[in-house]
Amino acid sequence: MKRIALVIQYDGADFSGWQVQENAIGVQNVIEEILEKIVGKRIPITGAGRTDKGVHALCQIAHFDTELKIPGDKWKYHFNAKLPDSIRIVRSKEVPRDFHARYDALKKMYQYTVYRDAIRPPQYRNYTAHVSEPLSMDLMEKGVHMLVGTHDFHAFMSTGSPVNNTIRTLDTVEIVEKENLLLFTYEAQSFLYNMVRIMTGTLLEIGMGKRSLASIEQAFSTRKREDAGITMPAQGLTLMKITYEEEL
Amino acid sequence: MKRIALVIQYDGADFSGWQVQENAIGVQNVIEEILEKIVGKRIPITGAGRTDKGVHALCQIAHFDTELKIPGDKWKYHFNAKLPDSIRIVRSKEVPRDFHARYDALKKMYQYTVYRDAIRPPQYRNYTAHVSEPLSMDLMEKGVHMLVGTHDFHAFMSTGSPVNNTIRTLDTVEIVEKENLLLFTYEAQSFLYNMVRIMTGTLLEIGMGKRSLASIEQAFSTRKREDAGITMPAQGLTLMKITYEEEL
Repeated sequence: MKRIALVIQYDGADFSGWQVQENAIGVQNVIEEILEKIVGKRIPITGAGRTDKGVHALCQIAHFDTELKIPGDKWKYHFNAKLPDSIRIVRSKEVPRDFHARYDALKKMYQYTVYRDAIRPPQYRNYTAHVSEPLSMDLMEKGVHMLVGTHDFHAFMSTGSPVNNTIRTLDTVEIVEKENLLLFTYEAQSFLYNMVRIMTGTLLEIGMGKRSLASIEQAFSTRKREDAGITMPAQGLTLMKITYEEEL
Repeated sequence: MKRIALVIQYDGADFSGWQVQENAIGVQNVIEEILEKIVGKRIPITGAGRTDKGVHALCQIAHFDTELKIPGDKWKYHFNAKLPDSIRIVRSKEVPRDFHARYDALKKMYQYTVYRDAIRPPQYRNYTAHVSEPLSMDLMEKGVHMLVGTHDFHAFMSTGSPVNNTIRTLDTVEIVEKENLLLFTYEAQSFLYNMVRIMTGTLLEIGMGKRSLASIEQAFSTRKREDAGITMPAQGLTLMKITYEEEL
């Protein structure tokens, strides 16, 4: 028995997310179906984490066990020959039998992309949120400094999420301007549900002058969802990187 | 009565092309429906030229006549507020009453985009053709020099097209490498049906060593479709620019 790890890219626009939701097909499901065709029987694959409907991945990680003698780096060809264009296996590798895509993940990095000119070209519509209001980079940078570090992010989590401990440590928050795009990058060991989309909504509202910087401290202390900003739409969000002790 | 010109961007993936085809909706149709909502009656719009299903536009031009007193540059806001994200009016302008989007067009520029690494990331799937074979830039450049100029392009037109005169003058053909992309740019007063996609297929087959440079001369003289290369898929093609005597 061998354990194989996959590095997976997908376009969230075509799927219900990583997992099956509300009758729409999940990325995990599609990959399991192809694996069944290759192997001849159903084998579950374990992903590093879920992504929601519309959210993209440049580096989702998953693993599965097999007795087939296909060398680790050849699996990607078998998958890509059968997968739809909207899912690509960019790397495949044999990993130690005790490797676990979810439990061994040390850090995750997400990027949220905003298109901020008056008119958003059509080809950006599935990959960005559109903000046409002027934004103060200075105010948003100050907001970034307040988010970084260890806080109770309860207010930055969608209500009703079944999580007890809402304390998280944000290692990195960064905003980069690239032509008409604003790229918000977040890195942490783990995130709460919708936390990246809510933090981005909060920073943008601060940048627009609709919200004070002090509201971030207030949201940390009241822990109330309504004290943080809006949840930005899914299509601007991309899972960029998952860090393990050894690079995959 | 005023004549208004529109500069239009659209994502071809969502439409049957500029015009209605086989029960799928055309871009022109969508814009006419919005115009009807703004004006209160159906007014035809005239486009500079058709694009096929899957083909994109960064600068399609159309015009229409109206008695409404909306200033020329404000029309784009009225349209964009109601159009789907996959169509944007990037400019609107009042033009002289005798301006004609199709008849006044002096030149058109198309770009064909190829993704040429082994694995194509999912977000490129609707905007590029995928070529994983090695390509000789040197051979393709030689092919470019043979295409430029005035020739009988009958072999580079889809069979059955109702055109008498198949002589065209290509002003510019250019191939630019940009990271993993190859950008083929073509400029001419007018093109035959599928000519850009067939020229690109021919150049790529030459670059792969599947076709000789001499075959271009042969295709010019035999005028036979089978002597030119394959028709590349629609999604790699974008209408980039239409030139008029005065800039719109």
